Amino acid sequence: MGKFITFGEIMLRLAPAGFERFAQAKEFGAVYGGGEANVAVSLANYGKDAYFVTKLPKHEIGQAAVNELRKYGVNSSMIVRGGDRVGIYYCEKGASQRPSKVIYDRAYSAIAEAKREDFNWKEIFNNAEWFHFTGITPALSDECAAITLDAVKAAKEAGVMVSCDLNFRKKLWSSEKAGKVMGEIVKYCDVVIANEEDAEKVFGISAEGTDITGGTINGEGYKEVARKLTDRFNLKYVAITLRESFSASDNGWSAMLYNGKDFYSSKKYRMHIVDRVGGGDSFGAGLIYGLTSGLTNQDALEYAVAASCLKHTVEGDFNLVSKDEVETLMNGDASGRVQR
Amino acid sequence: MGKFITFGEIMLRLAPAGFERFAQAKEFGAVYGGGEANVAVSLANYGKDAYFVTKLPKHEIGQAAVNELRKYGVNSSMIVRGGDRVGIYYCEKGASQRPSKVIYDRAYSAIAEAKREDFNWKEIFNNAEWFHFTGITPALSDECAAITLDAVKAAKEAGVMVSCDLNFRKKLWSSEKAGKVMGEIVKYCDVVIANEEDAEKVFGISAEGTDITGGTINGEGYKEVARKLTDRFNLKYVAITLRESFSASDNGWSAMLYNGKDFYSSKKYRMHIVDRVGGGDSFGAGLIYGLTSGLTNQDALEYAVAASCLKHTVEGDFNLVSKDEVETLMNGDASGRVQR
Amino acid sequence: MGKFITFGEIMLRLAPAGFERFAQAKEFGAVYGGGEANVAVSLANYGKDAYFVTKLPKHEIGQAAVNELRKYGVNSSMIVRGGDRVGIYYCEKGASQRPSKVIYDRAYSAIAEAKREDFNWKEIFNNAEWFHFTGITPALSDECAAITLDAVKAAKEAGVMVSCDLNFRKKLWSSEKAGKVMGEIVKYCDVVIANEEDAEKVFGISAEGTDITGGTINGEGYKEVARKLTDRFNLKYVAITLRESFSASDNGWSAMLYNGKDFYSSKKYRMHIVDRVGGGDSFGAGLIYGLTSGLTNQDALEYAVAASCLKHTVEGDFNLVSKDEVETLMNGDASGRVQR
Amino acid sequence: MGKFITFGEIMLRLAPAGFERFAQAKEFGAVYGGGEANVAVSLANYGKDAYFVTKLPKHEIGQAAVNELRKYGVNSSMIVRGGDRVGIYYCEKGASQRPSKVIYDRAYSAIAEAKREDFNWKEIFNNAEWFHFTGITPALSDECAAITLDAVKAAKEAGVMVSCDLNFRKKLWSSEKAGKVMGEIVKYCDVVIANEEDAEKVFGISAEGTDITGGTINGEGYKEVARKLTDRFNLKYVAITLRESFSASDNGWSAMLYNGKDFYSSKKYRMHIVDRVGGGDSFGAGLIYGLTSGLTNQDALEYAVAASCLKHTVEGDFNLVSKDEVETLMNGDASGRVQR
Amino acid sequence: MGKFITFGEIMLRLAPAGFERFAQAKEFGAVYGGGEANVAVSLANYGKDAYFVTKLPKHEIGQAAVNELRKYGVNSSMIVRGGDRVGIYYCEKGASQRPSKVIYDRAYSAIAEAKREDFNWKEIFNNAEWFHFTGITPALSDECAAITLDAVKAAKEAGVMVSCDLNFRKKLWSSEKAGKVMGEIVKYCDVVIANEEDAEKVFGISAEGTDITGGTINGEGYKEVARKLTDRFNLKYVAITLRESFSASDNGWSAMLYNGKDFYSSKKYRMHIVDRVGGGDSFGAGLIYGLTSGLTNQDALEYAVAASCLKHTVEGDFNLVSKDEVETLMNGDASGRVQR
Amino acid sequence: MGKFITFGEIMLRLAPAGFERFAQAKEFGAVYGGGEANVAVSLANYGKDAYFVTKLPKHEIGQAAVNELRKYGVNSSMIVRGGDRVGIYYCEKGASQRPSKVIYDRAYSAIAEAKREDFNWKEIFNNAEWFHFTGITPALSDECAAITLDAVKAAKEAGVMVSCDLNFRKKLWSSEKAGKVMGEIVKYCDVVIANEEDAEKVFGISAEGTDITGGTINGEGYKEVARKLTDRFNLKYVAITLRESFSASDNGWSAMLYNGKDFYSSKKYRMHIVDRVGGGDSFGAGLIYGLTSGLTNQDALEYAVAASCLKHTVEGDFNLVSKDEVETLMNGDASGRVQR
Repeated sequence: MGKFITFGEIMLRLAPAGFERFAQAKEFGAVYGGGEANVAVSLANYGKDAYFVTKLPKHEIGQAAVNELRKYGVNSSMIVRGGDRVGIYYCEKGASQRPSKVIYDRAYSAIAEAKREDFNWKEIFNNAEWFHFTGITPALSDECAAITLDAVKAAKEAGVMVSCDLNFRKKLWSSEKAGKVMGEIVKYCDVVIANEEDAEKVFGISAEGTDITGGTINGEGYKEVARKLTDRFNLKYVAITLRESFSASDNGWSAMLYNGKDFYSSKKYRMHIVDRVGGGDSFGAGLIYGLTSGLTNQDALEYAVAASCLKHTVEGDFNLVSKDEVETLMNGDASGRVQR
Repeated sequence: MGKFITFGEIMLRLAPAGFERFAQAKEFGAVYGGGEANVAVSLANYGKDAYFVTKLPKHEIGQAAVNELRKYGVNSSMIVRGGDRVGIYYCEKGASQRPSKVIYDRAYSAIAEAKREDFNWKEIFNNAEWFHFTGITPALSDECAAITLDAVKAAKEAGVMVSCDLNFRKKLWSSEKAGKVMGEIVKYCDVVIANEEDAEKVFGISAEGTDITGGTINGEGYKEVARKLTDRFNLKYVAITLRESFSASDNGWSAMLYNGKDFYSSKKYRMHIVDRVGGGDSFGAGLIYGLTSGLTNQDALEYAVAASCLKHTVEGDFNLVSKDEVETLMNGDASGRVQR
Repeated sequence: MGKFITFGEIMLRLAPAGFERFAQAKEFGAVYGGGEANVAVSLANYGKDAYFVTKLPKHEIGQAAVNELRKYGVNSSMIVRGGDRVGIYYCEKGASQRPSKVIYDRAYSAIAEAKREDFNWKEIFNNAEWFHFTGITPALSDECAAITLDAVKAAKEAGVMVSCDLNFRKKLWSSEKAGKVMGEIVKYCDVVIANEEDAEKVFGISAEGTDITGGTINGEGYKEVARKLTDRFNLKYVAITLRESFSASDNGWSAMLYNGKDFYSSKKYRMHIVDRVGGGDSFGAGLIYGLTSGLTNQDALEYAVAASCLKHTVEGDFNLVSKDEVETLMNGDASGRVQR
Repeated sequence: MGKFITFGEIMLRLAPAGFERFAQAKEFGAVYGGGEANVAVSLANYGKDAYFVTKLPKHEIGQAAVNELRKYGVNSSMIVRGGDRVGIYYCEKGASQRPSKVIYDRAYSAIAEAKREDFNWKEIFNNAEWFHFTGITPALSDECAAITLDAVKAAKEAGVMVSCDLNFRKKLWSSEKAGKVMGEIVKYCDVVIANEEDAEKVFGISAEGTDITGGTINGEGYKEVARKLTDRFNLKYVAITLRESFSASDNGWSAMLYNGKDFYSSKKYRMHIVDRVGGGDSFGAGLIYGLTSGLTNQDALEYAVAASCLKHTVEGDFNLVSKDEVETLMNGDASGRVQR
Repeated sequence: MGKFITFGEIMLRLAPAGFERFAQAKEFGAVYGGGEANVAVSLANYGKDAYFVTKLPKHEIGQAAVNELRKYGVNSSMIVRGGDRVGIYYCEKGASQRPSKVIYDRAYSAIAEAKREDFNWKEIFNNAEWFHFTGITPALSDECAAITLDAVKAAKEAGVMVSCDLNFRKKLWSSEKAGKVMGEIVKYCDVVIANEEDAEKVFGISAEGTDITGGTINGEGYKEVARKLTDRFNLKYVAITLRESFSASDNGWSAMLYNGKDFYSSKKYRMHIVDRVGGGDSFGAGLIYGLTSGLTNQDALEYAVAASCLKHTVEGDFNLVSKDEVETLMNGDASGRVQR
Repeated sequence: MGKFITFGEIMLRLAPAGFERFAQAKEFGAVYGGGEANVAVSLANYGKDAYFVTKLPKHEIGQAAVNELRKYGVNSSMIVRGGDRVGIYYCEKGASQRPSKVIYDRAYSAIAEAKREDFNWKEIFNNAEWFHFTGITPALSDECAAITLDAVKAAKEAGVMVSCDLNFRKKLWSSEKAGKVMGEIVKYCDVVIANEEDAEKVFGISAEGTDITGGTINGEGYKEVARKLTDRFNLKYVAITLRESFSASDNGWSAMLYNGKDFYSSKKYRMHIVDRVGGGDSFGAGLIYGLTSGLTNQDALEYAVAASCLKHTVEGDFNLVSKDEVETLMNGDASGRVQR
């Protein structure tokens, strides 16, 4: 088994307890997370040899992020240490008609200020099997965009599979800039993962007849999106997650997968939400697991959707569920009966 | 913009954590609230110049109540200091078929023992735009009833708009006494707010065909109630909130408004409840905001209902939501999607 | 009124906070519970003279279990003190599609290692009215099976009513062994309580057409189960609880009662779950209360189902609800409206 | 062994966490305590048959107080149920130069409003061995003073030993009134317990050369105090506790005992304080235990001082230490080495 | 009474619970503080009309900082809103031989990025009586240094008293730069406050014979320091605080004051520390209070030292003690006896 | 650098919050620790390649113990998975005259039930530099004694240095048995660590003139002890820690080292205790670090004593301090001044 490398930012998440609003918080729950780190933890949970690559300060807060990754079995030995800040995001949990709210304080973090020479990608990809990143990483800074481009090129050269979750963040960059930068990077990708809005926001590729805020989703339209992405970037797989937001407490969740030839649609779950942050990342990790573990395309998709369905019941960014738990759900037991 | 004055009691609320029963509590969460104080906080949140008038002891617990009001931008400079007790209510949160339970320990509080001479209403209403109180205040003691009557008369004299939320509390007084006292006071009111049972319990004015415990509501009947109230007290507005209690966890919520001529009906929300205490107060505050900020009658009503829908997702008595948040919901986005 | 004796194990339950997974826990909530202890607490809540019999170590953890029983009015004076361990179970709360998970660490507990001579059943049943135990107790050890057999024989001799909740636990023994041991013990019982799977797992008596994991239940089949149990063991009553697991968060709940002649079916509740552990025990306690307090068979069943419906809204193993609360629900008020 | 009866008020204590000030508290720790209830719990811990007599409301907060007493083995069967309020005290823990602060909210509690006919002292003292109360009880109301006088008279008649801890509270009554009321009651007492200031504040009997705030104590002076008390009230024992307040964090602690003939002085402990509330009560309980369990006068005193020294290390009002623990300290092991 | 203006940064302080190390924290306590904000809160506590001037983001975290100031009575109406970050400091509490540890994450905060045109000092100083800042503010950025210089010049022009706490922070600037910038600013000051090391680190003015780490302090040397500062900057008052660090748990604390003519030395307190952050700020606030409230120089100094002694017993940056509490300690009662 | 192997049990420690007694606990803090695991964590903190060897169940509680070790950088890849129980100890923190109390529930743990064939010591010691264990491990079971003997023999064979902390536990075995078993095992050791009582309890070698409970220690006597141990077992080093228990809150701490020729005595620290569990283990780890990192004997001893002094300020079993922190204290800075 080769190494599964993910690259990006891991942030400190500061969250009021339960459903408290920011103004009421006297404590903040402190967990660590970020798109690619979340994927790494999932892969480690499923038994893969997961590495997370980033840059983190040497001080105790940087170390705490490292410790959290180690705790869950992620190899942290390729994390570069230096810089001043651990990026932060404040996260208030919503309920019913009140949405969750995220305030980012991630500018000037160690990874956002990292330099190309901080990373030796050739060495990193030695014996690697998969490389995953999200559209957040190149959005952190121009240098990060350059580093990501270095990475995907090196990955290709090393014969490593490359997956990218588009993950558009309007607070980090404009659609214009995202389209331009990602347009270069995605050329080196094999697998692209997107949600209902990413493809449109980044590449202007949209599914007609979908009203995200209203909660209706047009499945057919997404096939068109997948086909266009595949054609433009010569991808092996495109996966699209479909979230129906009935409220902050209840969501529908499903996904589709396109392998350039066939479309696969997953079961749909109706979830009562504990914590939805990291939902998309857990899908990505499930898909990577499925595609590298001998599952059929349909099963890989079902694994990914079941895994990410379970994520919505887990507090924090990390999807702390086991392979067994994912398989139980994927195989049909959604009854939630006590396991004694 | 003039001052928005509210007058009543602010209590210390002692609540077991989460869904714990009283018998299990080793800590009580401590927040402060009360019908009129809740309205003041909402008005401050929406940018109004909100004042809360009451009497509170000089000791640290009295001061903590003052601090909490100041924290949320309510002007506390007209609060009279003296007396011995801060009123208390113990509040246990229900779930599903188990109702929330409130035990009052508010007798002998500083405000319940206040004297008419404690308040100089003429001064208080200097530059005031609105005066709001609830039926709880005159129920606290005979002297409080007299003080409230002083207040509404002075308000009228000063040309200040007066609103009253009937808020009948059977633990504080009988329907007979309430009817008699409130019959005098409401004469000086411009706006009356009531829920499904208040009008009947206080004035014997009821909507036929409604079974509150059973959860069915007869909209037509409430028009009759509004009309009768308007006729009897020569009111400018009557607003009635309509709660459907499916369970302690899930409620339906809507309202209607009558301006002596037309009836307005709001959207109806189905809410998954975080904390329903203060739901009615948040409606009142939303309505006052709407009626004083250039909204149409329909919009004022929708603002009030959206605001109070959001209250049900906020812990504590105070409705800690912003004008922006209310408007987003009122304008149709109930999807609860994460705001990044 | 005679004594109501229950006999079995009381364990320390260690539970992560809220919906945390075991891997995230830095604290464990510590409560005490166990099938028969739970019944004892309910009976004390309803005003019965409840005794719990077990063996517990003399040290502070054993004492804490005693204290918890005393706190809720259970007489602990017949608890034998000695041995080393308080049995433990770790309990992680599930949500939505993720089931709750229980890890037992109860082997070698003081009661599992107790000896027949530790208990003087003749003395214990002096002035007793009812004896209750579950199928867990004889499963703890061969000696415990012998002690239980001693107990039911002594109870019969003393003219005490005997009830047994079959409560099959596959981690403690095999169906084969359970069938053999329980086959002897149940001969001395008057009332048997079972859930959807117990009768099949213990005695091979099943209801056709029921798929527990899938959530469908065949009411007719259960009548057959009740009839067979009654015939085989010459029982006065058989009660069967029927749980529909829509998810870990939402369940349906009802039950039926058979008195050897007539079948009674209860109302069905749809519950939003706070804590489902002890749900079955709270049913048993409600039934014992009903059958010993002059209620009709139908009312006894409704009392039991309403009581256990409420249990699902209470944290911990114990059903901390009062007779009044059960009666309110049983009489039809499921609206969850705030009780002020 | 006869019953040990204590009579007084049990209050809900609301305390900010750790060293937080009232203004910072978002939760209040909730424990129950009061001079005589504290004594009852200690006596139950030492194996005595302890009863606490009071009046408490029927609601859940009243029940919680009952539960807490039951939890620690105090017999609550003679507690009268009725009235509205559970008395409250807010308690902020001090440190170093900042003193602890107590705000009482106990007026109008169920016991303060109790009537003489609520208590049947003849029945209460049936088979009793000891009766204990403090000077707080008669200070609660004139009726409470009358009830206490009823009690001591009945106790005398029943041949029960009577002890009184003077416990002067200036917030409850004046020295003048205390002197007058207590002057009547103490006539029926056998044992009086006082601290450095009580005798002076209640009876005007003082020890010269003592400066309480300054922390110096004049041992000789206290002998004079004990002698005068004994002479005036014909007492069997007078005990005086001597606290040296170096700071809110560190105190010296010792006591003396006078049996009308000899003076006994205890060891002196220097304590690092965890919670000093209930320190005096724990001394009283230790003394009662000692005097009724065959200890010499010196040992009874040492037991009382060791017990109360340990109280200062226990959170809450109750002195949750065992007889073994008291004896270990009393016999000289103050090393605090881990007990494995 | 005029306005008391303070100007600087208010940060979010994130602190592990109790004595936990950063690596163990799963929650961070969240309070707000900063040198000048701390002074403002103290002044408000003592009844002064305190204003805090800074720049804070409009988002909820910025608002939370504003709320905290309002809660404690500080006028926040002159706070400029804008920018992105609220500065953060992570703070781990030490004990015994393990020192407390602070990690700053304050770069790029709204105030550090503020512009000179953000502040209209002429308006701010309208009706002002006192202006206070610390050496931290000009160290935040070159622009902040310019703004501070603007401020002191405007204060002088408006006839406002100006005080500066030198507060050297080596993480923010070098001694060289500090000396240069502060050399300009302090010219406009009337009062300078320094601790054992500030004068040396900023202006190279030192007290011989003092070994800070070793805990010995040479009082005579500090007179020399005070004299030199006074001479160089033509000051009205120089105050120097003297901390003896026996350990992270126990400190000695005293101060001296020089009015250009006489030296005043305070009492010395030995403190058992709850939270020492903000100790120096609380001294500054106490001194400002004393010098503006008719106290003698000696009493002003004693007030300042007593106030700051008490601060060491209060959690958080703010010194939440009242004028009464300071006066009680200043007048000699350091016994820490419970205040009932 | 070679591997540093430690072998033993890691337990779940369940501890009431703060100074709560067991009877008061509603939550237990959950950390993991054990003599040898504690040493492994310290060594990882100091940069050594630390491995912990044990047997742990596959379930989530076993995994949580593994996660905790990984979090702090200990290599867990040689931990055998299997068995049923994670050993538990309940730990109540003492204060002042009240000692801490430990209740063990470790019988039948996975490691106590492990078999010799579970461990391949030859493989384990491949490339190893040091092997450490304590006297607890062979005391767990006869099989564990045999495994430990296997281990030390294999270590010797592999040329690995072997250290043993005698760590006598009277609850696990008698002095007689300990002496016999350890007498065989210590023959293969190079370094022995003991506290004031171990040598006497295990080998009957005592220091005259020491009264542990009384707190006096006779330094000369310990030289005799060290000499006798060295002579009997042909050791390279004997280290003895010397604890003076003034109270549960304050201890003195120092140690001595004997290399078969010279005696070295350390500085003595007076510590205000946060958590003393693991104090001895942290000394052992410091000594191993010192002896393998080029320090002089005196410096190795000072490092070990400074490290373990700091441990007493850290919550939990693990000594979470860095090499820098140890060196700062060892080099003389015990002032506890804030590190900014």
